[in-house]
Amino acid sequence: MSTDSRVTLSDVAAEAGVSLATISKVLNGRPDVSAATRARVEELLARHGYQRRTGQTTAKAELLELVFHELDRIWSMELIDGVESVAKEHGLSVVLTVTGDRHSPGAEWLDGVLRRRPAGVILVFSDLPPALRERLRSRAIPFAIVDPAGDPSPDVPSVGSANWSGGLAATRHLIELGHTRIAAITGPADMMCSLARLDGYRSAMNSAGLPIDPSWVRFGDFHVEGGRAEAMRLLDRPDRPTAIFAGSDLQALGTLEAARSLGLRVPEDLSIVGYDDIPLSRWVSPRLTTVHQPLRQMGVEAARLVLAVAEGAAATQRMDLATSLVVRDSTAPPAR
Amino acid sequence: MSTDSRVTLSDVAAEAGVSLATISKVLNGRPDVSAATRARVEELLARHGYQRRTGQTTAKAELLELVFHELDRIWSMELIDGVESVAKEHGLSVVLTVTGDRHSPGAEWLDGVLRRRPAGVILVFSDLPPALRERLRSRAIPFAIVDPAGDPSPDVPSVGSANWSGGLAATRHLIELGHTRIAAITGPADMMCSLARLDGYRSAMNSAGLPIDPSWVRFGDFHVEGGRAEAMRLLDRPDRPTAIFAGSDLQALGTLEAARSLGLRVPEDLSIVGYDDIPLSRWVSPRLTTVHQPLRQMGVEAARLVLAVAEGAAATQRMDLATSLVVRDSTAPPAR
Repeated sequence: MSTDSRVTLSDVAAEAGVSLATISKVLNGRPDVSAATRARVEELLARHGYQRRTGQTTAKAELLELVFHELDRIWSMELIDGVESVAKEHGLSVVLTVTGDRHSPGAEWLDGVLRRRPAGVILVFSDLPPALRERLRSRAIPFAIVDPAGDPSPDVPSVGSANWSGGLAATRHLIELGHTRIAAITGPADMMCSLARLDGYRSAMNSAGLPIDPSWVRFGDFHVEGGRAEAMRLLDRPDRPTAIFAGSDLQALGTLEAARSLGLRVPEDLSIVGYDDIPLSRWVSPRLTTVHQPLRQMGVEAARLVLAVAEGAAATQRMDLATSLVVRDSTAPPAR
Repeated sequence: MSTDSRVTLSDVAAEAGVSLATISKVLNGRPDVSAATRARVEELLARHGYQRRTGQTTAKAELLELVFHELDRIWSMELIDGVESVAKEHGLSVVLTVTGDRHSPGAEWLDGVLRRRPAGVILVFSDLPPALRERLRSRAIPFAIVDPAGDPSPDVPSVGSANWSGGLAATRHLIELGHTRIAAITGPADMMCSLARLDGYRSAMNSAGLPIDPSWVRFGDFHVEGGRAEAMRLLDRPDRPTAIFAGSDLQALGTLEAARSLGLRVPEDLSIVGYDDIPLSRWVSPRLTTVHQPLRQMGVEAARLVLAVAEGAAATQRMDLATSLVVRDSTAPPAR
């Protein structure tokens, strides 16, 4: 892609055979432009690497866009709270969009963003296809991704958490209690955080010289039911593990249900470590030992990152916040 | 207040001794108007009952404003989810504002709303001072209040839930189990929902011919700690009640803690009914019997109400959604 930064909108208008007013409509997400014209203009803008100069917009931005794939009742609130607190410091209002089934927001959403001219866009558990990314870039609207589920390009600003370290800490805790038969139920195999937590588990086991039975590694769905189903497969056999790293608090709850249904006591017969430290983990009985994920702080850092990019002042484009083990009552030394 | 609906902006400009452009800035929340001029113009607009005609705005509204006093981690999500789903149906984006300590959003917030020209405004657990209400009205921006904590004027569109019926159903359930010594921990005395739930409790007791010891009626704070403190006062005495209607699930959790600290078993020694049916209530042990509040549906109805008002089509300006008792494991007949 060429990056002729001095291309003018008049050049693009001439090449596309449309008026400057039409170019302006496309740039600002306004209606009354045919889909074909819009596509041709976008293509030319991208080809020439058009870039709106920062500060070129007339009005001060008043909005910060926050985009979720879906609203997860248990922890979306923490992220919203973090983003909102930074927005308020900067006198910005937060626009919340839930994309629904799709894994990335669509073209309609993008036109709305171009019209609203936000200070920035934060995407949670969602990725931006290169075409949408290019359009935001060309309009000088910065964006960042929170907790990438996939593997975003290194040049996309993002905030995650230390998943590998979390998996390592959870498993080490079980090893230190004396467990040797430790299983792991991680999340879906196509999510980076699942793989990172699982690799942390493997590293802890390997460092301690403990073998991993291949049947001990399970992929769940991060929800209660997936945790229950995988835990049943692990526990309903004579050579069952004595401890399970459950990969999420909801999977830990499912594991707890599976243990109960088999007459196993937690932590006497089975130790369980969750992941996330959602409010529930403090109230379930026994209270869950879990890995605390700083969700609110991730929202705070993502908002700061996007605003720093907006001011051209972002030092780091990508950061992982620390996780920490919270020891409660669902883990104990194995029965002899 | 006069309601000279035919007052023109030119009249107001002449009377205020300012230009039409200045009037327009005030109407649309734009900067560059002194506070004194703004106040004088607003006063004149209010005195003449100025009313922007519906449909007078040039651009179609793209935003719906949702205002919280604070983001309650446990149930704000349900309301947001409900509002968002209706917004999406109408192609609107949701702007989220958290007002913080204040009980109503401030003038700065209002100017932002006037600039953004939303389809409507939904306030959760918050009221609008008459001056702000008047300004929204004069700009034809409809608003509604969700679950009013106070006692909004009858002419303010609002969505609540059937608090009195909820208190009645919770208490009747305990009476049907055979309890006669039933206490109530309701919320703060200055919140209508606290009083309505308490009155439902009183009515159930009175209908059953059961006396209410004045010491059995406690005012909490709807949080765990308030529930714990009030429950200690109720339970740490020989003539303790055998059942407590806890007024919120968090207060029920606090009551559960208090019972445990006194060596009382739930439900064998003490029955507890919560209120709200938050996700926690299904996971705590024993699982809570509680009154389900349709929070998501309240968000849905508030959004529909405000959009119906926007279209001049609102049949009902005020509604209470039904609550329902969910019987789980924290209630049982009293020990003999």
